[in-house]
Amino acid sequence: MTVKSTHITATAHRVSEEARRRANGHKGGVLWFTGLSGSGKTTLAFELEQRLFTDGFQAYVLDGDNIRHGLSADLGFSHQDRTENIRRVGEVSGLLARAGIIAISAFISPYRADRNEARRAVGRGFHEIYLDASLKVCESRDPKGLYAKARRGEVSDFTGVSAPYQAPDTPDLVVHTGVLGVLESLELIVEYVEKAFVPT
Amino acid sequence: MTVKSTHITATAHRVSEEARRRANGHKGGVLWFTGLSGSGKTTLAFELEQRLFTDGFQAYVLDGDNIRHGLSADLGFSHQDRTENIRRVGEVSGLLARAGIIAISAFISPYRADRNEARRAVGRGFHEIYLDASLKVCESRDPKGLYAKARRGEVSDFTGVSAPYQAPDTPDLVVHTGVLGVLESLELIVEYVEKAFVPT
Repeated sequence: MTVKSTHITATAHRVSEEARRRANGHKGGVLWFTGLSGSGKTTLAFELEQRLFTDGFQAYVLDGDNIRHGLSADLGFSHQDRTENIRRVGEVSGLLARAGIIAISAFISPYRADRNEARRAVGRGFHEIYLDASLKVCESRDPKGLYAKARRGEVSDFTGVSAPYQAPDTPDLVVHTGVLGVLESLELIVEYVEKAFVPT
Repeated sequence: MTVKSTHITATAHRVSEEARRRANGHKGGVLWFTGLSGSGKTTLAFELEQRLFTDGFQAYVLDGDNIRHGLSADLGFSHQDRTENIRRVGEVSGLLARAGIIAISAFISPYRADRNEARRAVGRGFHEIYLDASLKVCESRDPKGLYAKARRGEVSDFTGVSAPYQAPDTPDLVVHTGVLGVLESLELIVEYVEKAFVPT
């Protein structure tokens, strides 16, 4: 994207990321959850937020609820609007990360190019976590009845039904949420976070 | 704004704002700096960020640099684009506040309606800080040479020259940065933060 505001000058943050890391006891960064609707993104995101908070981390969930009703309230679910939504979430995740927080960003984010753009916006500290559950399993769960609605044509551009999902080629972590339970999945992610975010 | 994504369901954050407040020792919220170019917004924002960090607060500056080159890179300086920029900053400030952080948002934000919209997006915890310095003083400082450029017509829609600035009617704090020095101004704001964000 071409930056339109060319006369804005840079002022360095005086508080370094290293200083924030020392104060918080962990790095800031982004855990980017991607997967089909029903793969467990929201459930695991909030379980993880609570667990990390209890363990003394600064962590915060970005999800459809707090983004789609606010920052991206002007966007729908066309390919173009999804791309813009994920672009904004990538930028906000990066701001949270630079503020020292672990942003847990839980979005279907079906397009590989969009996720790569989020990775670029965040820089190092971006971790792509693929919640890998098959369409068959996700559709059989259908906790919100959305697959049924999509099959009846009542929801358009629905990932897996009427819009594509491009699985990650080289995710930083794969969690097989189609076969693992919530707690097993959570433990795998917590273990990953402790290795990736806590300096030894 | 009409929310387009009506099938997104709400999932409550398990970690309450009260729990975050207890862990951090202060509330999350937003210090919204408004004032002309040259009124000291960026300087005071970074001084305050450093001071609050040193005092053990979670604080983070949002300013033209980290917003205009990222989240709002697609926007210019027309009235419409400024409104959309401030809308996005308001939403992001609110997310930081709900994550327990004190967001220091430093933007000219010349339109009263836009600042009120940011206040609405954030909810309680929004504090409007008016850095009140006259156009004459700001133009005489002109640290980036932007007023000179605007007078020569090289920068369009420049607040105070070729675009309006609507001063706050009822700001939460006024700092007369046209007559006070940086340290005096900083002390007034720190005093305000300690009263407003630290529970007694």
